[in-house]
Amino acid sequence: MAGTAGDEQLSSHALKSPVPTGRPGGLARWLPILEWGRRYDRATFGADLLAAVIVTLMLIPQSLAYAQLANLPPHVGLYASIAPLVVYALFGSSHALAVGPVAVVSLMTAAAIGGLGIVDEAARLQAALTLAALSGVMLVLMGILRLGFLASFLSHPVISGFLTASSLLITLSQLKHLLGIRANGDTLPELLPQLIAGLPAIHWPTAAMGAGVLAFLYWTRSRLKPLLRRLGLGTRAADMCAKAGPVLAVLGSTALMWALKLDEAGVRRVGDIPAGLPPLTAPSMSPDILLPFLLPAFLISLIGFVESVSVAQNFAAKRRLRIDPNQELVGLGVANLAAAATGGYPVTGGLSRSVVSFDAGAASPAAGAFTAVGIALASLTLTPALYYLPQATLAATIVVAILTLVDFATLRKTWRSSRPDFLAAMTTLVVTLMAGVEAGVSSGVLLTLLGHLWRASRPHMAVVGCVPGTEHYRNVERHRVDTDPALIGLRVDEGLNFMNARQVEDRILSLVAAQPSVQHVVLQCSAVNDIDASALEMLEAVAHRLQDMGVLLHLSEVKGPVMDRLRRTDLLAHLGGRVFLSHHGAVMALGGEARVTAGRESGPPQP
Amino acid sequence: MAGTAGDEQLSSHALKSPVPTGRPGGLARWLPILEWGRRYDRATFGADLLAAVIVTLMLIPQSLAYAQLANLPPHVGLYASIAPLVVYALFGSSHALAVGPVAVVSLMTAAAIGGLGIVDEAARLQAALTLAALSGVMLVLMGILRLGFLASFLSHPVISGFLTASSLLITLSQLKHLLGIRANGDTLPELLPQLIAGLPAIHWPTAAMGAGVLAFLYWTRSRLKPLLRRLGLGTRAADMCAKAGPVLAVLGSTALMWALKLDEAGVRRVGDIPAGLPPLTAPSMSPDILLPFLLPAFLISLIGFVESVSVAQNFAAKRRLRIDPNQELVGLGVANLAAAATGGYPVTGGLSRSVVSFDAGAASPAAGAFTAVGIALASLTLTPALYYLPQATLAATIVVAILTLVDFATLRKTWRSSRPDFLAAMTTLVVTLMAGVEAGVSSGVLLTLLGHLWRASRPHMAVVGCVPGTEHYRNVERHRVDTDPALIGLRVDEGLNFMNARQVEDRILSLVAAQPSVQHVVLQCSAVNDIDASALEMLEAVAHRLQDMGVLLHLSEVKGPVMDRLRRTDLLAHLGGRVFLSHHGAVMALGGEARVTAGRESGPPQP
Repeated sequence: MAGTAGDEQLSSHALKSPVPTGRPGGLARWLPILEWGRRYDRATFGADLLAAVIVTLMLIPQSLAYAQLANLPPHVGLYASIAPLVVYALFGSSHALAVGPVAVVSLMTAAAIGGLGIVDEAARLQAALTLAALSGVMLVLMGILRLGFLASFLSHPVISGFLTASSLLITLSQLKHLLGIRANGDTLPELLPQLIAGLPAIHWPTAAMGAGVLAFLYWTRSRLKPLLRRLGLGTRAADMCAKAGPVLAVLGSTALMWALKLDEAGVRRVGDIPAGLPPLTAPSMSPDILLPFLLPAFLISLIGFVESVSVAQNFAAKRRLRIDPNQELVGLGVANLAAAATGGYPVTGGLSRSVVSFDAGAASPAAGAFTAVGIALASLTLTPALYYLPQATLAATIVVAILTLVDFATLRKTWRSSRPDFLAAMTTLVVTLMAGVEAGVSSGVLLTLLGHLWRASRPHMAVVGCVPGTEHYRNVERHRVDTDPALIGLRVDEGLNFMNARQVEDRILSLVAAQPSVQHVVLQCSAVNDIDASALEMLEAVAHRLQDMGVLLHLSEVKGPVMDRLRRTDLLAHLGGRVFLSHHGAVMALGGEARVTAGRESGPPQP
Repeated sequence: MAGTAGDEQLSSHALKSPVPTGRPGGLARWLPILEWGRRYDRATFGADLLAAVIVTLMLIPQSLAYAQLANLPPHVGLYASIAPLVVYALFGSSHALAVGPVAVVSLMTAAAIGGLGIVDEAARLQAALTLAALSGVMLVLMGILRLGFLASFLSHPVISGFLTASSLLITLSQLKHLLGIRANGDTLPELLPQLIAGLPAIHWPTAAMGAGVLAFLYWTRSRLKPLLRRLGLGTRAADMCAKAGPVLAVLGSTALMWALKLDEAGVRRVGDIPAGLPPLTAPSMSPDILLPFLLPAFLISLIGFVESVSVAQNFAAKRRLRIDPNQELVGLGVANLAAAATGGYPVTGGLSRSVVSFDAGAASPAAGAFTAVGIALASLTLTPALYYLPQATLAATIVVAILTLVDFATLRKTWRSSRPDFLAAMTTLVVTLMAGVEAGVSSGVLLTLLGHLWRASRPHMAVVGCVPGTEHYRNVERHRVDTDPALIGLRVDEGLNFMNARQVEDRILSLVAAQPSVQHVVLQCSAVNDIDASALEMLEAVAHRLQDMGVLLHLSEVKGPVMDRLRRTDLLAHLGGRVFLSHHGAVMALGGEARVTAGRESGPPQP
């Protein structure tokens, strides 16, 4: 079976992609708009416009709410939903991805700025756009250097643990707005005691407003759509109306607040939002801000990228298109640079918004640019109307959206399929809850890497002997085979590298120490696809040590590319032993007549 | 050829070691002395005693010199050469390893304490033993938890770059003692300008003393041995005498200093060394010291362990013995704890000393305990005699010993064998020189891991087609094979995990996007040895996305252990497609009559 796996690795030629990937050349490589813009027509325009109107209605409350989650004034959320969308339309490759503020990145922004201990609002605004700039630079660089593979550091268990933990943290952080009490902090140990201590001081009008909006939003999510269907609306129209829940909640609760003068009863409102277009801004260049932001910005970039790409790939697949992850890095990067230049904060592609955009029929990245026009109009004209918008409404919007990300089912699945993966997920979850997003994700990534290293440092190795009457060599533990007391044949079933070199060395030396009659060790390299400098050093050291014991080290069945590499080094000169084309040839040449039938029979013969 | 590699991986049974590793059970598992102590006899005692006398003579100047390198008073070096050696004799498994202060660890100790900005001598002593305690705890824990594999993080290129850079840094740091000028710092940018600026202020008597000792030491290293041989001495005796060079240098230069009253001319001397046995001490428990020491202590542990184990393995191999790396961790750990408890600083096994001990015939770990007695006697009685010992002599001893570690040959070798490994080595070298050991080693390790991740995220994949007239499937790029426009067969030649899941997903989706006629994708898993949670999630997501396009995902030739894992998950329920025993069976069942001869012929047919 494995025979089909290795045969073509004999050549060191890299595999070329056998199909065109649809990737354009020249300038269009970096500006996908040059590609899709040529085919833009009236039908596409109509589809994009409709999608933009619907996404705009959805994005207004979302951007205000996520700015609140990021501990920033609400208009920052609007600013982050204008220029970044236009720029993404130029550089992004996804037709449906709706870029803008998202919950998880907003939480991470709040934690990063909070970690710096900045209280002053102007300084926080400056820090937020600096974070966006840093993240933008990192994303663009990663795209240009084609470092999209770095996202692999975030394994699925780590992402799942992180998403569940941050959803819980976000919910906790919004409880204060829903209950009208005070609580600050970014972790469970910071938030929970304050929330519990604050319970007696619940502001009942605020809590009533919060509960009402929550109930309404849950109702629109679960009941409104079937109701509209029964009233005769089409499936898609009913779906769209149900998605308008947050807009209705904003309108209704603002009207209620204004009519009943609830703000005078102590229900907190959003207050003055400056009307107008975003200002031009520049990030801070102070190392006091840039240095501590390096890790948060990197994690925001990575997590935002992973979220965006998985959303974008999902939609691309539905239309049999594909997106280029490295181009997405560039698109998200310039979107963040645009956010930094226009008073915003870190943005990325959001799932729920993209679903709406896709369902509404968005047919090109232009839909995003049209949405930006909508948000700009809202920013110019609607802000006075938002004066009476209750903070509790925004909090309820966040909680309803975010609780869908809590995902204990994946944890259960992971428990069943792999204990180490479960450990990584649980560690990420618990550390994120207890010590914040950065510590949680970092420890999850570290644990994933450690687990990988641990497994990789235990390569599969087998002492082999000859199946009687054949030229085949098999594991002495599993098969009835002949061995020669003067010769040890050892097969390593993985590429030799820094992770397993020590283990291979240890195994060879312990085998030889345990078998005093041995004169030759033959390393069967049929499954060794690669060899690195650490493994070369190891082989040289082992060969020398074996020579000190009067034992020679030989290699057999070395693959072409590995042999090429060996020839570029002086290992073959230091080896002492020889390189044989076949393991049987080695045994014949070295063992000769001394071969005896001495197969171990620890397992039943398996011919 | 690869057929012999994969067949036995069908079972998930772990490979049991087929030979006894000679590892004792019970208490002797943790206290090797119970094992070798039973066989201890008069001959072994004599051999150990002789070796101990010779190593003691060598260790006295070394321990004084390395304490100077660590920016600690000279008697700390003596203290670190008493209790740790006794304790290692109880817990260590190597018969020849000579534990004590070593150059590289001393440099790292100086850098760690310097990084804390501690100037006061008492505080520096306390910090040094705290570092030893922390490193001891880490080593013992790593040993008990069998984490010896962590040493794999330090690939050979990283170690080689680090050793060369730290040898250069150590030499630079000792130049001030050799030239009698002032210069402080742990990195090239700190040291070099001060040394150059100090050149006009060279203290000539000190420089003359330094040059004289350097010349004498080089002469004993290169010329004394042949001379003694010509005078009729045996090889081993000549070798031993030549190794006594540093002792002679200490005696000679001390006598010269005393006779010519050079200290009054400004040549700096070691001065008062308190006579007596080491005091009992306890490490600091302050988090202000412990927290910033976590990384340095970890790196000191890891680097000390790697150095020790490779030395110990070398000697063990010469006597056909083996050492247990995890037991070495425990041995080195308790040695460091002993150093912390007796006013010492971090210790590990030293190469040059161990060579001498081995050559002198040390036959058991008891030789180390006898050496400790020798150093204790020296510490009690000889310290007044060391009052006039010039600091320049110690500096010369260090420089002569350390420059042998400068190793540009390995860099050249690595350049020829592997560019990424060379990059890791050069990065470690340059960053260590410019920013210190911690930054250097950390960046080297990070680069090694990134490089590994990069390679691992590019798994070998091949679109396969049927070799006409057979049931064999081969790469369409390399062979003349039949393919079916409605079916894509894709073989992945590696285990599926978090590192390559995204790449596999991307490849499948782009293949399908480029071939609109396709209805089935069959993933040939003959070389997939393992699958983790990230890869399972990926397969589920890909299956769903393909279903959105009207394409089914199937698996073929799934190995036993992988199939076991799949059965524990719900992937098979979500897959949509089927699992086939053979790839040919899949093609027959799915493709049926639609099969056409459409093999790509980009390469010559290779039957």
